[in-house]
Amino acid sequence: MGFNITSSASSDGVVEHHFTLGEIPGVLWTPEGAAGDRPLILLGHGGGQHRTAPPVVAGARRFAAECGYAAVAVDAPGHGDRPKTPELAQALTDMRTRAAAGEHMFALVAGLHALLAEQAVPEWRAVLDAVAELDCVGRGPVGYLGMSLGCGLGVPLVAAEPRIRAAVLGLFGARGLAAAAAQITVPVQFVMQWDDERVPRQESLALFDAFASADKTLHANPGRHGEVPAFESEDAMRFFSRHLG
Amino acid sequence: MGFNITSSASSDGVVEHHFTLGEIPGVLWTPEGAAGDRPLILLGHGGGQHRTAPPVVAGARRFAAECGYAAVAVDAPGHGDRPKTPELAQALTDMRTRAAAGEHMFALVAGLHALLAEQAVPEWRAVLDAVAELDCVGRGPVGYLGMSLGCGLGVPLVAAEPRIRAAVLGLFGARGLAAAAAQITVPVQFVMQWDDERVPRQESLALFDAFASADKTLHANPGRHGEVPAFESEDAMRFFSRHLG
Repeated sequence: MGFNITSSASSDGVVEHHFTLGEIPGVLWTPEGAAGDRPLILLGHGGGQHRTAPPVVAGARRFAAECGYAAVAVDAPGHGDRPKTPELAQALTDMRTRAAAGEHMFALVAGLHALLAEQAVPEWRAVLDAVAELDCVGRGPVGYLGMSLGCGLGVPLVAAEPRIRAAVLGLFGARGLAAAAAQITVPVQFVMQWDDERVPRQESLALFDAFASADKTLHANPGRHGEVPAFESEDAMRFFSRHLG
Repeated sequence: MGFNITSSASSDGVVEHHFTLGEIPGVLWTPEGAAGDRPLILLGHGGGQHRTAPPVVAGARRFAAECGYAAVAVDAPGHGDRPKTPELAQALTDMRTRAAAGEHMFALVAGLHALLAEQAVPEWRAVLDAVAELDCVGRGPVGYLGMSLGCGLGVPLVAAEPRIRAAVLGLFGARGLAAAAAQITVPVQFVMQWDDERVPRQESLALFDAFASADKTLHANPGRHGEVPAFESEDAMRFFSRHLG
């Protein structure tokens, strides 16, 4: 797949490079004047969001400006500017039908994540190959940060990709992910919402339990799926600083 | 009860004042040259430990040196230099008998905590009254930090004492504490060990669940009762900085 940077613009000490890798649109953030290997954070967005969702951009800019890291985000399959494949469109139709028939939404979403992950995992690995060739990124240690859909795609990615040395994951459960989680041994910070209306509490606890990592931390806060407190972003930055340098 | 500072010694920018309040021995740490109101951290030690246990001293010195706070620790009833009352001695004997007969140790320890808390809560409140009179402490916001026994005594204390504005608690469960926890509305950071051999996992989760605080965070890490990772001390300091200033 061809890698092309289509535009680069700098503001507040951070360069934002828009790129395409084949048909995948993405954004890479680097500190102004960056040259040489540095830690890289892969940012997975949530379901229905896209590569420039506000929390993705805010996080990426802080990693670049405050930590000197590179950060990269891409549209997940069927998200953002990407067309839905006929298979995905069919899966979404099926999901709506089954939800209307009373099936638990969490189980249906877990199934959708599994379908998307088959495509997303090799895509993320190709992105990693491509950006490692750039002088402003290089081959430093890699971290992954993703919640909800970003967790559903992130768990199989972190399990498969040895360049990823640490991960912040959360807002999803063990359904469909337990086997991949059991292959993960790098440090994990796992964030859950105690009153998550989309993810059953026991599912979240079971996913935390499933990670094989000796160094893993669960952070739970009250509130609904969309109400993760702002201080968890700070905690994620500190976690990566501790593990990626 | 008479309050007497029996000695004060300064090192590395921190003054360590040994005191007695009636029959309670304690230590107060303040930044060198401290004058005027400042946040104060009450440090509750673990079971079988005492007011100068290494983690207590290390934490207190960092609060004073790095945050400019005051910190205070006392021997819990029946601990450290304090004699065991006949009632406590009898309770410990009963506990050994019942443990030998197969009763679950966690439930027995919870009962012991409840007995000690009846005495410890008014003692802590008297300590708070006494040190607030000192120029180097004053009447700033108060935090409480205690694990295990320090949690068993801390939950009823934080519930009863309105001067306490934030608490870091952990390594104990809901047994005997749920009603007091339900009266706590100040911010709480709750630390549990995922593989705690002394506190059943569901007991820890249930205690976190019981706090009425809108702002509460659960931190869980793998490992046994005594294996809380060092970064949780950093997290506790940041938590108090956020809430006490």
